[in-house]
Amino acid sequence: MKAIIQQDTDNPSSLELTEVDTPTIKKGEVLIEVKAAGVNRADLLQAKGHYPPPEGASEVIGLEISGVIADAGDSDFEQGQEVAALLAGGGYAEYVAVPKGQVMRLPEGFSFEHAAAVVEVACTVWSNLVMEAGLKEGQTILIHGGGGGIGTFAIQVAKALGAKVAVTAGSKQKLDRCRELGADILINYKEQDFAEELKNQCDVILDIIGAKYLKQNLKALAKDGHLVTIGLQGGTKEDLNLGIVLAKRLTLQGTTLRSRGTQAKAEIVAATVDNIWPMLEDGRVKHSLHATFPLAQAADAHETLESGEVTGTLVLTV
Amino acid sequence: MKAIIQQDTDNPSSLELTEVDTPTIKKGEVLIEVKAAGVNRADLLQAKGHYPPPEGASEVIGLEISGVIADAGDSDFEQGQEVAALLAGGGYAEYVAVPKGQVMRLPEGFSFEHAAAVVEVACTVWSNLVMEAGLKEGQTILIHGGGGGIGTFAIQVAKALGAKVAVTAGSKQKLDRCRELGADILINYKEQDFAEELKNQCDVILDIIGAKYLKQNLKALAKDGHLVTIGLQGGTKEDLNLGIVLAKRLTLQGTTLRSRGTQAKAEIVAATVDNIWPMLEDGRVKHSLHATFPLAQAADAHETLESGEVTGTLVLTV
Repeated sequence: MKAIIQQDTDNPSSLELTEVDTPTIKKGEVLIEVKAAGVNRADLLQAKGHYPPPEGASEVIGLEISGVIADAGDSDFEQGQEVAALLAGGGYAEYVAVPKGQVMRLPEGFSFEHAAAVVEVACTVWSNLVMEAGLKEGQTILIHGGGGGIGTFAIQVAKALGAKVAVTAGSKQKLDRCRELGADILINYKEQDFAEELKNQCDVILDIIGAKYLKQNLKALAKDGHLVTIGLQGGTKEDLNLGIVLAKRLTLQGTTLRSRGTQAKAEIVAATVDNIWPMLEDGRVKHSLHATFPLAQAADAHETLESGEVTGTLVLTV
Repeated sequence: MKAIIQQDTDNPSSLELTEVDTPTIKKGEVLIEVKAAGVNRADLLQAKGHYPPPEGASEVIGLEISGVIADAGDSDFEQGQEVAALLAGGGYAEYVAVPKGQVMRLPEGFSFEHAAAVVEVACTVWSNLVMEAGLKEGQTILIHGGGGGIGTFAIQVAKALGAKVAVTAGSKQKLDRCRELGADILINYKEQDFAEELKNQCDVILDIIGAKYLKQNLKALAKDGHLVTIGLQGGTKEDLNLGIVLAKRLTLQGTTLRSRGTQAKAEIVAATVDNIWPMLEDGRVKHSLHATFPLAQAADAHETLESGEVTGTLVLTV
């Protein structure tokens, strides 16, 4: 089969379609004929050699796909069934083998292209906001990077849950977009100190920054507050004052979706389909495609995502 | 009524029996005639002025008692019923008013003296090991200060849950005691580096040290590991490497029992009675009294606890 493998990490744009062996399925896996593959920032990192696949995962780039079941293995799926899947890798390809717990139905009314683009963000947002941080109706959540792919999705899910939503972003344009999606408190981090604005108010913070925001996040958290860090765009090392952590009974958690085990991913996929798919189907959560590229033009898709001029998700079609 | 109030924090031993107003109960509270009051390290801190009571709590020292219901208020308890209670303060006294959710039955076969001494440690251990850190059968827990009051209790509860238990302590004598209670891995922190011995192995760490152990704790935690810090004997400030936190998907949590709200305490008390009382009643968890003192001799009890020569709990009798 044909697949995209990065063979020269010094040249991230050298992604080329290569002939590789079609994967064979192991116990508990299904084989999917890929119709569309979502493009994620983690793919850009992997193309640069900064985000190697977890042990045992495919060398092929790609964390989310849609397609049809080519071999149902020992699963309850049927050959030909239309599905989407969360992957540890292997999505930029004609076929991919996936643990059956990571395979899910398409949201009703969603095309292959659109479904492929929503899996990773939906699983990331549901697992972190609800399964880890326990966000509940009436609580206040602060979402950093409110204008980004995860941020825009998280705002809508948090509002659907009945939470009060604060966001940070770096431009009026992005903050206007956050307001349209339902955000209640808009903070331009270039002009305002979010910790001062939200001192002791945040029950949950969804953080993609890390070290640079750690002290401010601690200040912004309310008693029993929960900080979930899923990205380290602002570095890794910072002083921690455990006196504040104890006095406010805080929880600081770091996590990544991709590195999790098969069992954990299956639980996340099941909960995401149960909770987020209905939100997508009745329009409480909107998700937009920015553009589609043929699989062979993966390098162009990466350049477009890298450029930062993207307001929705990019998808490769196979 | 008579009660112990610290009026001179420069002289921790000046604790004297004073005449104060008998407390009146508010909605949702019961009045208990105190028979025995447990003595905790937090009481020593409060006597030195270092641990002021939470807002709205009694100025009277004392976090756990047993006694009989003097006024059941709007609760389902009955006047004269023998009970124990978890307090935000007010225990070193003839009467105390307590939110009804913090009042519990005595463990079967327990005297007033013994019951008064077990409330705080049992609630601390159950809430942190299970309700916060989610300790499960087959997991590995590291308990710092294994020879102390919380440590010896936590070892037994963790073993009763089917966990593998590692402990740190500073003497062979204390480690021998930990082994008798069931600890599987014994580490003398004066001679060994626990992080090296337990690298990537601990699903849960119960920590009373804080900053001084933070880096080692992160190293000792397994993937998805959970560090619960409930004391800061080793300071408050330390560098944190969030790269490790994300890569291992760690949770770092700080908490104190006393500062929690009424609802949270009621949930903890209910779960503790459901889970720990049976362990005390059938002997899976043993708990010993070191000595009893009359209420008027609270200062002597504090001096004895301060001396460090205590292998069980101290109780004041009223």
